[in-house]
Amino acid sequence: MRKKGKSREKQANVEASLRVSPAVINRLPRYFRYLRELIRIGRLRISSSELSELMNVTASQIRQDLNCFGGFGQQGYGYNVKYLYGKISEILGVTQNYKAIIVGTGNLGRALATNAMFENRGVTLTALFDIDPTIVGKRIGKFEVEHIDKLDEYCTQNQVDIAVITVPRDSAKETAEQLARLGVKGLWNFTNIEFDLSGTRTKVQNVHLGDSLMTLCYNICAEDNRIAAEQRMQSADNQSEQYED
Amino acid sequence: MRKKGKSREKQANVEASLRVSPAVINRLPRYFRYLRELIRIGRLRISSSELSELMNVTASQIRQDLNCFGGFGQQGYGYNVKYLYGKISEILGVTQNYKAIIVGTGNLGRALATNAMFENRGVTLTALFDIDPTIVGKRIGKFEVEHIDKLDEYCTQNQVDIAVITVPRDSAKETAEQLARLGVKGLWNFTNIEFDLSGTRTKVQNVHLGDSLMTLCYNICAEDNRIAAEQRMQSADNQSEQYED
Repeated sequence: MRKKGKSREKQANVEASLRVSPAVINRLPRYFRYLRELIRIGRLRISSSELSELMNVTASQIRQDLNCFGGFGQQGYGYNVKYLYGKISEILGVTQNYKAIIVGTGNLGRALATNAMFENRGVTLTALFDIDPTIVGKRIGKFEVEHIDKLDEYCTQNQVDIAVITVPRDSAKETAEQLARLGVKGLWNFTNIEFDLSGTRTKVQNVHLGDSLMTLCYNICAEDNRIAAEQRMQSADNQSEQYED
Repeated sequence: MRKKGKSREKQANVEASLRVSPAVINRLPRYFRYLRELIRIGRLRISSSELSELMNVTASQIRQDLNCFGGFGQQGYGYNVKYLYGKISEILGVTQNYKAIIVGTGNLGRALATNAMFENRGVTLTALFDIDPTIVGKRIGKFEVEHIDKLDEYCTQNQVDIAVITVPRDSAKETAEQLARLGVKGLWNFTNIEFDLSGTRTKVQNVHLGDSLMTLCYNICAEDNRIAAEQRMQSADNQSEQYED
């Protein structure tokens, strides 16, 4: 009986997640982050106007976004922080207890291996792999690095939902295709290479750090140009004022 | 005379960059990345249709995007790879020779400090800072980590365009505000905290790794749900077929 209730609830969540628009989905991790922070500081409830000020979006946007999941908020009471956090966690898959491995334990792979981010988001790191014989067998955090030759065997015998790809660019494509063949559901790609895994069920999330740095450089450069243009206008104004004198 | 020509050219670039729409700007780092790869493998020119296949966007999109910078392509000849790369580099600020520092040399800060990404994008790392006395004075790559107490002095006496923020969350806000006060033009923010630097000229580019991981989890979860729904439909179809038999 209880099982049936649980499965019906799960089904309702599935249907809810299918109704949510991609734009809302893209904003959910940010809600997740802010709500977690509110829990951390012991807040039990929050009004949409207060949350809107905190997150720097309109209260109406927040109400619209959160209404997608049914009426979490109550007029004059606001949102129950823990309940909302729980619902958003479910939609985002945080409660699925996904298992992840890291392939490539260079500087970035090592930095990620010891980061609490996975644990904080319900993802459990289970193994690290590398090809370099001087690294294989070494301990990083609570893991002993395994040789990449064991990847097939490991993925066949263990649940691996996510693979973090931090290998050098030259082996990125091959590694991604191998992991997709092995049925890994998601690749978190830190290389600059883009993968074409159409025809597989594997989803790819790219973290193109270089692109992000470039966008920052562009914004700095554009602001430099804007300020310079303003100064030129100013000095032209000053000159024409001089003539008027 | 030559200086005047140069300055006129620079002015033309500035005006070009002001004309480009934000959507195009967001796509530029990706063009930059693909063109660099083409240069790496020795390609001199490429047609918009070939580039479109490579980048998995329509040829018409590519022509539209690149036309923003004036006629780089020639009918029947395609794009001159190096010329286009140079122009996009200019727009993105790669040729500005920006100087960057890293504040916070934990695992992630260290991983970034030894990454070729900066150099590859015309950004020069010049110093690393940390508060931990056991890290200050140690060498990371070609740098000796400096104490964060020296940040003010360093930023006043040296050109610092970009600060990479990889400090713990509790000191993130304070560090960002200090750097903005010091006139640093751009913050590359790897913390989960968002900064409000309105009223300053400082631009912020966030790398919310946790949000990216969450988006991947959501996509995996949604695909799981989609497959499960398909299987339920399939099994319902099979059942109704059985009844029909």
